[in-house]
Amino acid sequence: MKRLHIQGLGVSEGIRIAKAHIYKPVQAVIGEGVRSEDCIPDNPSAVEAELHKLRKAKTDCVEQLGKLIKKAKEAVGEEQAGILAGQRKLLDDPAFYPKMEARVREQLEPAPRAVAEIVRQVVSMLEGINNNYMKERAADIRDIGSRLLACLSPGQTGGLAEIEGPVILVADDLAPSDTVQLDPALVIGFITRTGGATSHTAILARSLGIAAVVGAGDGVGGIEDGDTLVLDGAAGLCIVRPEEPEAERYRLRMRQELERNRSLEEYAARPAVTADGTRVELAANIGSAAEAENAVRQGADGVGLFRTEFLFMNAQAMPGEEEQFRAYREAARSMGGRSVIIRTMDIGGDKELPYLQLPKEMNPFLGYRAIRIGLDRQELLRTQLRAVLRASAFGTVKVMFPMISGLQEWRQAKAILTEVQAELSQDGVSYDKNMEVGIMVEIPSTAVLAEMFASEVDFFSIGTNDLVQYTVAADRMNEHVAHLYDYFHPAVLHLIHRVIEASHAVGKWTGMCGSMAGDPLAAPLLLGLGLDEWSLEASRLGGMKERLASLDRQECRELAKRILCLDTPQAVRQALEEFLNTQGPSR
Amino acid sequence: MKRLHIQGLGVSEGIRIAKAHIYKPVQAVIGEGVRSEDCIPDNPSAVEAELHKLRKAKTDCVEQLGKLIKKAKEAVGEEQAGILAGQRKLLDDPAFYPKMEARVREQLEPAPRAVAEIVRQVVSMLEGINNNYMKERAADIRDIGSRLLACLSPGQTGGLAEIEGPVILVADDLAPSDTVQLDPALVIGFITRTGGATSHTAILARSLGIAAVVGAGDGVGGIEDGDTLVLDGAAGLCIVRPEEPEAERYRLRMRQELERNRSLEEYAARPAVTADGTRVELAANIGSAAEAENAVRQGADGVGLFRTEFLFMNAQAMPGEEEQFRAYREAARSMGGRSVIIRTMDIGGDKELPYLQLPKEMNPFLGYRAIRIGLDRQELLRTQLRAVLRASAFGTVKVMFPMISGLQEWRQAKAILTEVQAELSQDGVSYDKNMEVGIMVEIPSTAVLAEMFASEVDFFSIGTNDLVQYTVAADRMNEHVAHLYDYFHPAVLHLIHRVIEASHAVGKWTGMCGSMAGDPLAAPLLLGLGLDEWSLEASRLGGMKERLASLDRQECRELAKRILCLDTPQAVRQALEEFLNTQGPSR
Repeated sequence: MKRLHIQGLGVSEGIRIAKAHIYKPVQAVIGEGVRSEDCIPDNPSAVEAELHKLRKAKTDCVEQLGKLIKKAKEAVGEEQAGILAGQRKLLDDPAFYPKMEARVREQLEPAPRAVAEIVRQVVSMLEGINNNYMKERAADIRDIGSRLLACLSPGQTGGLAEIEGPVILVADDLAPSDTVQLDPALVIGFITRTGGATSHTAILARSLGIAAVVGAGDGVGGIEDGDTLVLDGAAGLCIVRPEEPEAERYRLRMRQELERNRSLEEYAARPAVTADGTRVELAANIGSAAEAENAVRQGADGVGLFRTEFLFMNAQAMPGEEEQFRAYREAARSMGGRSVIIRTMDIGGDKELPYLQLPKEMNPFLGYRAIRIGLDRQELLRTQLRAVLRASAFGTVKVMFPMISGLQEWRQAKAILTEVQAELSQDGVSYDKNMEVGIMVEIPSTAVLAEMFASEVDFFSIGTNDLVQYTVAADRMNEHVAHLYDYFHPAVLHLIHRVIEASHAVGKWTGMCGSMAGDPLAAPLLLGLGLDEWSLEASRLGGMKERLASLDRQECRELAKRILCLDTPQAVRQALEEFLNTQGPSR
Repeated sequence: MKRLHIQGLGVSEGIRIAKAHIYKPVQAVIGEGVRSEDCIPDNPSAVEAELHKLRKAKTDCVEQLGKLIKKAKEAVGEEQAGILAGQRKLLDDPAFYPKMEARVREQLEPAPRAVAEIVRQVVSMLEGINNNYMKERAADIRDIGSRLLACLSPGQTGGLAEIEGPVILVADDLAPSDTVQLDPALVIGFITRTGGATSHTAILARSLGIAAVVGAGDGVGGIEDGDTLVLDGAAGLCIVRPEEPEAERYRLRMRQELERNRSLEEYAARPAVTADGTRVELAANIGSAAEAENAVRQGADGVGLFRTEFLFMNAQAMPGEEEQFRAYREAARSMGGRSVIIRTMDIGGDKELPYLQLPKEMNPFLGYRAIRIGLDRQELLRTQLRAVLRASAFGTVKVMFPMISGLQEWRQAKAILTEVQAELSQDGVSYDKNMEVGIMVEIPSTAVLAEMFASEVDFFSIGTNDLVQYTVAADRMNEHVAHLYDYFHPAVLHLIHRVIEASHAVGKWTGMCGSMAGDPLAAPLLLGLGLDEWSLEASRLGGMKERLASLDRQECRELAKRILCLDTPQAVRQALEEFLNTQGPSR
């Protein structure tokens, strides 16, 4: 058999060499087995029996997902568990499961056919919309559909349980609920025929540290079970049955990669210090209290952003004060005195909460979300602030409000906090009376008015993801305008500069928790602009510390001054790359 | 019969006193007559006969709408005609008319029932979405449905043709296609039981100068044909069978209103000059070449914004170079040497063009629109620029690009213009070689980088509608965040200030064509900030000239300086109101 090169989309980096394990997930069944079956007999008891099977399958499905969600929370964090929680929610959608029961009842279809038909309808509707986001949602629908089918015919299980040694999984497609079950010790990489870069499966692979290539096309059919594979997750390349000199080259690269990872781990364990000896504060973004511990292990100086919305999104009903308090206290305790910045819930936009019944909107990113909801439905904000304040007695807690667009919103939110503090004092409940209170700077108006805000808030945290999106008016999830979405846009840099300067002028500080803070290319610029705190994914801390160790603060200040005169994102990138190239070899 | 006060939403101002004319539009039929009819016989010829009736009704409908669109263009302009053109397009929607044929064919329903059923389904779907915008679209669906029904039973016509004297129309609801047929000399006002402030009907009433109160509730049922009515369109009030002293008070107010309108007409006829003798340039926004003439009549110094997208939106296919050229030339000629600023097409966002097949987007306002489309599908932009350049030989034409977010987009657009100029020169076609080329400033990034842009562009035109929306991240059509959308937001004012200053520093000029430019309350502030050109709806020119005549430029400069230190929109409004109150009586 001849050697074969397959090119796909690299979505999770890493070099892996292992045997292929061909995996055929259950959802393949949707297109096949259930097509031409007969109708069920037209009598009430037969219909009721079929409905019973379907309902049982739904119950099993909900139960299985519950277990997987628990597992996912432990293995990969709240955000990933949320993907599966989203699937579980789909079962409550009136346009989904109830339509399956209706087909059984009204058209006398056997349950598997009813499931397959509704899945097919919804998927084809979603795929008809010319939009990657909707296509990814179709994958979730297919996933939940195949799980329902599997529950209807319990004989068929997936092949994942049979894997024994380290393998590279080869599949037509992997559903998020497949991926979350993968044990990274056994499945060290995977390649799929279909799938896109923004899919949930790709996100999960990165979280789990599994190298992954997706959308590799029909070439995947040329791989046989047991073939030796080289997978290069960064390049999106898979070499099937490699010849010896080539395999040896990849083994060498794999060893180098391991060494580099070890060196990054060493960096992660040390404090972040620049070449000139400046200590930099590097914090982590977390989505659950459980992740706080991991952040400390990976060398975080604190938590720069606790995204509390996952607490809400993974629940069936609004979590109460006590439940929230326990989560915030756990995070505060895990950090052992290091600071934990809790952001009040940032729901709305692309983050739905079915039990809140948020309005459907034409432009959800310009709509009813975050503090806008909190100031409108104040009981939600009050409950959260009570929980945060109570937790502040157990560590160094700070709080910040998201999506502040004007002074009035800030003052209103601050007034509510003051009222809650007074209530707690009256009730004799202890809390940190000096807790710092800040705002996210993620709306252009707030960056423009940074000087006015600076005298009233304790700190700023720049959220680049939204700030870029609004500053250049480009939805970051829309592929048609993706070329405009760039945090190196000179206008964004001017706004960041303005915010940092405004805070320093009155002795306050500015952090950053958007994805720019995790980009080593941006590090010299942000250091030069005087950013006080970086908050990034915990897995990136080592790399960022390595980068900072190579930088001289004074040189970066001069670089930043030059960059503020550049007029395109391309020119900014080029200046940064050139700067790092001249820096690299000498240190 | 007793006197009655009815309170509704005032959507088009004006005091009117006249007899009531009760009007029952055809769409009332949808809910009533067509419910319980029998099926048509199950044989091919009967089905074909029924389908024939339905198709004939559709054809008649398209023809009627064509005539109404033509009439609307003449009477109220392109934008309003576009509302009806949008309804005509609905007939091509695969989810609408074809489903009616399907019901006749498959369920043997008589055509009227099929029409009524599909209309009911689509309307209930749209109304289920918790969003005013969708609710208004439901009104369009109902309108087209009732037109189809009327065409199916040609005996029933509306009562509009019977009106002879000046009356106030009383109706359950008025469809846009009803409203556009109203003759403002005969129907001087209307009041409806249902309807909202943002409906197409409300927009049309304002355009036609018909006083209107909508959403007045069940009280409307207490009005009888021939009752004397007082209608106050500003207050949203209707007095049925008023008593004499009250009626006399309103007659007096009506006379005062007429006098004021006459005085505004006089202002409109004179140039705009401030109290200190400064000449201000007041231009008009237009949507079609035909409106240019009207703008001159109403006293415009030029056209500050020619919205070319209506040329595209009201067409069935892309208008070619020749058709565009004729429209731009007509506008240039009508203005007789006064300047005409043509904006290249601003489609996308909420403005769809079916023949371009734009992508469906999650957040269309942050998506693929305006110059983003022009730079991607360059043949569209090239054709338009050729037409604009050719027209520049026939008057004082300027061109500007919408939705510019960075220097690169501007340079790319400018380069295309230069190429088109070279082509024309080569072809020996004459054009104005000194034509000014500017950009819309409506994205925060462009306002922030105004200094960088100023040295390259000939002028700026600030589009406040989008600029506000992006600066504060609030969709202006979303009622849940409407309280945040305010052009008096201090951040917006800082950006406007920055843009004007940047242009003046290099001897360029700045205009404004968003709705802020038409607000007399904003006038002292904009004058004080040094705005060079105002572009507003032609009907507002008189009022703005009156306001400007009362203002002293130096006082306004000091006012603007004070206002730039204020930190909330409320404080800004208050400062402006106080300023105008102290100004008012003395002059």
